[in-house]
Amino acid sequence: VSATCAAHNLTESEFHALREQATAAKSRAYCPYSGFRVGAVLLTRNGEYIPGANVENASYPVTTCAERVAFGRAVVDGHRDFKAVAVATDSNQGPASPCGMCRQCIREFCELKTPIIMFDKKSNFTVMRLEELLPLSFGPSALGVPEPSKS
Amino acid sequence: VSATCAAHNLTESEFHALREQATAAKSRAYCPYSGFRVGAVLLTRNGEYIPGANVENASYPVTTCAERVAFGRAVVDGHRDFKAVAVATDSNQGPASPCGMCRQCIREFCELKTPIIMFDKKSNFTVMRLEELLPLSFGPSALGVPEPSKS
Amino acid sequence: VSATCAAHNLTESEFHALREQATAAKSRAYCPYSGFRVGAVLLTRNGEYIPGANVENASYPVTTCAERVAFGRAVVDGHRDFKAVAVATDSNQGPASPCGMCRQCIREFCELKTPIIMFDKKSNFTVMRLEELLPLSFGPSALGVPEPSKS
Amino acid sequence: VSATCAAHNLTESEFHALREQATAAKSRAYCPYSGFRVGAVLLTRNGEYIPGANVENASYPVTTCAERVAFGRAVVDGHRDFKAVAVATDSNQGPASPCGMCRQCIREFCELKTPIIMFDKKSNFTVMRLEELLPLSFGPSALGVPEPSKS
Ligand SMILES: [Zn+2]
Ligand SMILES: [Zn+2]
Ligand SMILES: [Zn+2]
Ligand SMILES: [Zn+2]
Repeated sequence: VSATCAAHNLTESEFHALREQATAAKSRAYCPYSGFRVGAVLLTRNGEYIPGANVENASYPVTTCAERVAFGRAVVDGHRDFKAVAVATDSNQGPASPCGMCRQCIREFCELKTPIIMFDKKSNFTVMRLEELLPLSFGPSALGVPEPSKS
Repeated sequence: VSATCAAHNLTESEFHALREQATAAKSRAYCPYSGFRVGAVLLTRNGEYIPGANVENASYPVTTCAERVAFGRAVVDGHRDFKAVAVATDSNQGPASPCGMCRQCIREFCELKTPIIMFDKKSNFTVMRLEELLPLSFGPSALGVPEPSKS
Repeated sequence: VSATCAAHNLTESEFHALREQATAAKSRAYCPYSGFRVGAVLLTRNGEYIPGANVENASYPVTTCAERVAFGRAVVDGHRDFKAVAVATDSNQGPASPCGMCRQCIREFCELKTPIIMFDKKSNFTVMRLEELLPLSFGPSALGVPEPSKS
Repeated sequence: VSATCAAHNLTESEFHALREQATAAKSRAYCPYSGFRVGAVLLTRNGEYIPGANVENASYPVTTCAERVAFGRAVVDGHRDFKAVAVATDSNQGPASPCGMCRQCIREFCELKTPIIMFDKKSNFTVMRLEELLPLSFGPSALGVPEPSKS
């Protein structure tokens, strides 16, 4: 944990809060179709924690993943500056990662070096930077739009 | 307004709050691609107003509409009981309606008679019940899952 | 069947072909997550039948429904002029309808009076026009784009 | 080109066909909203080329990207065994990559070592394996479903 915090400019208390809040968010999931609970939390540059959980739908493609629920809430609340993203699942096979669609959502709002911390059921964790999870990505600037995370 | 309120079991003060909050939410939109701002607000059975706005993405299909941002937030906050949905846009051609994808999202969490109030730029409005906007719909029970709105 | 055909400008042989091809398409579904097979077929103005089936994904929102698979194929093959849409499922509770997201996809490419024919497991059917399934819809013209179905 | 072909078990004629067909598919895009044309083509193990192009929608999240249009078509036609994926755009800033959502779609059906070849407007190209574009991915087996690409 301390090496992770040092590498990603987080305090240990931020790391623990990310773990606890992502795990707590997991219990808010609406996932009667998959039965697979996912919790997410965003840490903003000014120290707020914004939660999300997966919200499924009888029409599967209408589902919104935990990460995108959290970004929806954060963006509507005016946040554009994120320090870390954490995700927690009930996986027993090691931490589960954000799906590709969510990596693209994170790309829209976060800098490439943003750490994404993934927790499994036992709080084992893996950390990857956005640029590692979504290499060679494209975002707003590819379409001539300013990058929110650079503003 | 008073006829609308009577037909849908809303007070006039709830109606005005829905209009104001949907309009306010619109200003929170992140829509650099379409330039089309949408605000949404959900009124819960216990009197809370939950806002949403569209959150677009350089990969267009990764966009989350205002209504789904609001439902994501509400569901994660534990709400399962909604009294009304309101949507506001800058349309000058009369009120714009929720897209089909959002109607399906509303279907997951609301009763069929739920009113959906749509405001245009000048606060002209149209009201339709969910069952009018998405007739012959399917939801959780079609897949053997309990309907959240019936619990 | 004959009344349906008369009402929607279809021949009985077109109706039977729609039923057979939608049912056949159902067997092409990739749906290991929901186990709910859906087949779709589009009849173009020049007499071609374009099939689709649901293609699911471990990340549920990355799923593409049968109808959208069919429109993807049709549009890429240059079709812009559709006479009817048919959908077949294994539902035993009467015919299942397209989800809201697919109704919005149909809206992009079809005229409002286009018939959408829904078959259940025993080939019982229901027919609704697009404007009945997605009333008060918005499409390309709302964003200043020409309607493909009017060209 | 020859080094790329050797590294990824492609013949030069396959490589050229991928480039030509991805470029040709681009001209089939329906993209009146973004104006950004994308073509894709899948090479199956038995030598067929399956095209796709982006099919946009007035409701942006209802858009299907070129890669997912191609996989929809291929899967419905019974293909489960892919040798390569190619994508072509009009980008002048070097080749554009598949969005995260499409990387997740590719993950469902392709082996991790599958090459994804990206062409820009001038046919400059970049190649990355799926496991490089979507590291630490999850797919069917995470949910207890057999991997189509291993069958
Ligand atoms: Zn996701
Ligand atoms: Zn919508
Ligand atoms: Zn659908
Ligand atoms: Zn894509």
